[in-house]
Amino acid sequence: MARTQGSHSDITGPRVRDAALRLFARHGYAAVSMRQIAGEVGVQAGALYNYTPDKQTLLFDLMKEHMDQLLSARAAAPAPGGALAALEAFTRFHIRFHAARPEAVFIAYMELRNLNDDNFAVIEGLRHTYETQLEDILRQGVAEGVFDVADPKITTLAVIAMLTGVNTWFREAGRLSLEDVETLYWDMVRKAVAA
Amino acid sequence: MARTQGSHSDITGPRVRDAALRLFARHGYAAVSMRQIAGEVGVQAGALYNYTPDKQTLLFDLMKEHMDQLLSARAAAPAPGGALAALEAFTRFHIRFHAARPEAVFIAYMELRNLNDDNFAVIEGLRHTYETQLEDILRQGVAEGVFDVADPKITTLAVIAMLTGVNTWFREAGRLSLEDVETLYWDMVRKAVAA
Repeated sequence: MARTQGSHSDITGPRVRDAALRLFARHGYAAVSMRQIAGEVGVQAGALYNYTPDKQTLLFDLMKEHMDQLLSARAAAPAPGGALAALEAFTRFHIRFHAARPEAVFIAYMELRNLNDDNFAVIEGLRHTYETQLEDILRQGVAEGVFDVADPKITTLAVIAMLTGVNTWFREAGRLSLEDVETLYWDMVRKAVAA
Repeated sequence: MARTQGSHSDITGPRVRDAALRLFARHGYAAVSMRQIAGEVGVQAGALYNYTPDKQTLLFDLMKEHMDQLLSARAAAPAPGGALAALEAFTRFHIRFHAARPEAVFIAYMELRNLNDDNFAVIEGLRHTYETQLEDILRQGVAEGVFDVADPKITTLAVIAMLTGVNTWFREAGRLSLEDVETLYWDMVRKAVAA
């Protein structure tokens, strides 16, 4: 029984999250019902409540999973010692990570408005942890004398908005490869913060 | 009769658009009904159809009005002759225009997915017209020898994403004035494209 339950959760949990991600990205959180998500998974609406207590928890879990994956992928990525190399690694990592999961990124930005206060605070905390990693690189570069950045906090927000913006236009089949794009953006970031 | 009709439209049309803008920004287009919009305006649902044939038209009108206002405000703004001064004027204009209407900007980006094909083509065309103005400034700067930009199209998208990103964090009551923000962003843009 415990084993069936376990296998069941293993299979259906990810399918519920995938269906919710797809439907939220397509129609927006507020327009999607638990019944629609169940229909997409191919289970009865009641069965969904074995996996999640409610739609708010489902949204929160999707956004938290996205941020957790971002932070662990970043922790596993190369992090060179010097600020210039660290900034290049961050830039390329950010573009690659986000380009690979457009629906999760779209939801991470768009559905913040639909998180309850406690859940919002958790997601904002994780986002702040990520942003601080870039801010620290900028401050390090200023200390090393290789960057001239008047306000590292604002530059962090500006660089992240610029890099995440790739998702609004990049298509695999386009004239540029993702590596071309990384290189073009790295050139802009490098110059924007240069001493 | 014609006069009553006219006055009626003059007063209620903007109120319908304001209510739709507010509700779409808060809940997302797909989650908002014509009945809710009517309720927000304080009229019967049927009365709404005097002003708009359907919800899709309402969304399209909001997005088109936003783009029309952007293009006419830009046409009325200072446009200095040299590329460097033109880029500064564009940067400051873009931040100021977008910071003043966060809901319309949010919808302009988020609800593209909900436009039908014909409407999408119109909005994309207007957006392209706007982006081309920045691209032309970048190409002019390259020709003048003051900018070094490998791919003006990509740099255009990168700069616009960075500048519009101000809307995700700027608050009037924060530590920086909008003019401080403009100056910090202009410094980054200027360096990012410098020869």
